[in-house]
Amino acid sequence: MPVFLMHRIHPLDISVAPAPTFGAVFAGLKPHMSALDDFLRLQVEAFEPEIRSMADYCIDTSGKRIRPALVFLSGWNQQTTPAADLVKAAAVVELVHLATLVHDDIMDGADMRRNRDTAARKFGPTAAVLLGDALFSHALHLAAKFPTTEVCHMVSESTRKVCAGEIVQTMRRGSIHVTREDYWRIIDLKTAELFRVSCFLGARLSNAAPAYVEDVAMFGRHLGIAYQIYDDLADFYGDEHRIGKTLGTDFSSGKITLPLQVLMEKLPEAEKLTLIDEICGRSPGQIALRMEQMSQYDVFSIVAAAVQEEIVLAEKNLRKWPDESPTPLLGQLCDVLRSQIGSLKA
Amino acid sequence: MPVFLMHRIHPLDISVAPAPTFGAVFAGLKPHMSALDDFLRLQVEAFEPEIRSMADYCIDTSGKRIRPALVFLSGWNQQTTPAADLVKAAAVVELVHLATLVHDDIMDGADMRRNRDTAARKFGPTAAVLLGDALFSHALHLAAKFPTTEVCHMVSESTRKVCAGEIVQTMRRGSIHVTREDYWRIIDLKTAELFRVSCFLGARLSNAAPAYVEDVAMFGRHLGIAYQIYDDLADFYGDEHRIGKTLGTDFSSGKITLPLQVLMEKLPEAEKLTLIDEICGRSPGQIALRMEQMSQYDVFSIVAAAVQEEIVLAEKNLRKWPDESPTPLLGQLCDVLRSQIGSLKA
Repeated sequence: MPVFLMHRIHPLDISVAPAPTFGAVFAGLKPHMSALDDFLRLQVEAFEPEIRSMADYCIDTSGKRIRPALVFLSGWNQQTTPAADLVKAAAVVELVHLATLVHDDIMDGADMRRNRDTAARKFGPTAAVLLGDALFSHALHLAAKFPTTEVCHMVSESTRKVCAGEIVQTMRRGSIHVTREDYWRIIDLKTAELFRVSCFLGARLSNAAPAYVEDVAMFGRHLGIAYQIYDDLADFYGDEHRIGKTLGTDFSSGKITLPLQVLMEKLPEAEKLTLIDEICGRSPGQIALRMEQMSQYDVFSIVAAAVQEEIVLAEKNLRKWPDESPTPLLGQLCDVLRSQIGSLKA
Repeated sequence: MPVFLMHRIHPLDISVAPAPTFGAVFAGLKPHMSALDDFLRLQVEAFEPEIRSMADYCIDTSGKRIRPALVFLSGWNQQTTPAADLVKAAAVVELVHLATLVHDDIMDGADMRRNRDTAARKFGPTAAVLLGDALFSHALHLAAKFPTTEVCHMVSESTRKVCAGEIVQTMRRGSIHVTREDYWRIIDLKTAELFRVSCFLGARLSNAAPAYVEDVAMFGRHLGIAYQIYDDLADFYGDEHRIGKTLGTDFSSGKITLPLQVLMEKLPEAEKLTLIDEICGRSPGQIALRMEQMSQYDVFSIVAAAVQEEIVLAEKNLRKWPDESPTPLLGQLCDVLRSQIGSLKA
């Protein structure tokens, strides 16, 4: 039995949970997340007094915090207390993520997120653009507090990629010519990139061997792609209460996600054009009809298979490293994601 | 005669210009600006292929480029060719500035800048928010290419301050309770901070003595405040052709600039409320009446005196350092600003 499983209360023990969830796995990271909370709250002090309460509002600690969890898990080293560098790196990736959410909500015209007003609604879109910028800047300012420029280098490049992914998604909105390659490219940039860097930083800051750092980073990338496809699938098949948003939210957002992409490939040409009009809000969405067609063409299985494929690619990167401390923990994330797909209403 | 004045063609010789302008002073920096142009154009390659042409559009090289000029002048060391580090630092501050312009134009709903469509108009506000983010990220990515984290540290903090300044300005829009202290605070953050950092980086990267670096940075700060007040004054008294925008643009933007602040202080209470309504666009702007009142209360002289005071504070920081190469060149900037105020239509 590996050393990390010998704790009296194993921090990542999910044996009591009938269907493992990310929340259950991350529950084992309580001291880490609590240190992260404290650290993030302290950051508010760094903002100019006039915008402190606004920054505080945006530094929402109620999210799933998958990216910080990836930092902690990839840097797992039987720590009883979380290493300061990992907490700082976790804060950096979370702040970048929070900044993108603030800007996303402006662009999507979203009023609510996690059951409260978005920054755009609370402070107005103008202030929200600038607040997002201030959060980005502060993330990079924290990144500059490591001894070398490596964290700044990685995080600033990642941030640019996340933005590029969002831009490409925006430019493709409502286009009938979006290919599967386009979809993969978009989610690789907008989601997988920050997953990748979170894993990279966790391993790197724990002084893992360079080859392991690279493999863990690639694990993160494929997990990120798998997670985004899962999330896009959950938009149609999820449990509204559990995922916390209305089903089919993406449907009329103009974004082409994989379930819609697959459906489009199956539909006759004329029907495809009608669907595009619905996706872009040019005509009312026939969500019941589209769900029926998804069922007819078995879209769920095709998309679920795509998630599975990415999970397999993720796991492949860990295969060479069975004895590294983070390996079994990262493997559990794959199990959770598999189990989550299974529990979506097919 | 100091060494730098002994060049056959002194790069900063402004003796032929009857009224010195920033343009004339910066003309002496042609090789530097040309190196900066080349460097900025190269940066476009770093962006993801899908957004390269958009980044290229935003990396506009037609601006005044005061911040890069401050980097080059503060780092002046009789260079015949511009030092690579100064070019890189100049690119960093210019990219941060360009990113803020992209976001400013979205928030102000501006369609045109420098006689062409703004990014917001050309690509839509959604893409423009993300493009601004990508430019910010790339600026920080370049900052991470210096050997230490110092440039990242300085620039990310500065960027946050610039955003904070813009947020405070936004929150104060249309308020009757804006004080002179508020105005100073806003322009210190939104303008003077990046001027300060530009000067700091120029001197620092040229290995100037720490005390000199600090003084040059403070020079930059006061010059930035002076420049912003001058710019706000030019909005009412400038030559439309020369400043390239319609007079009184700020008048109905909701922003309280020093000329309006001073006018408000002079007006009776009831009139003050009417003026605020005009500034916020709640009632039609009586620009002719307001100009007449400004003339009646001699607002021009009061604001011009404020510029002069800041110029004096800027110069004070250079007084201890008459023999440093950048000193006379930075001093010329003060002369130019003085001369520019003189040439505004009083």
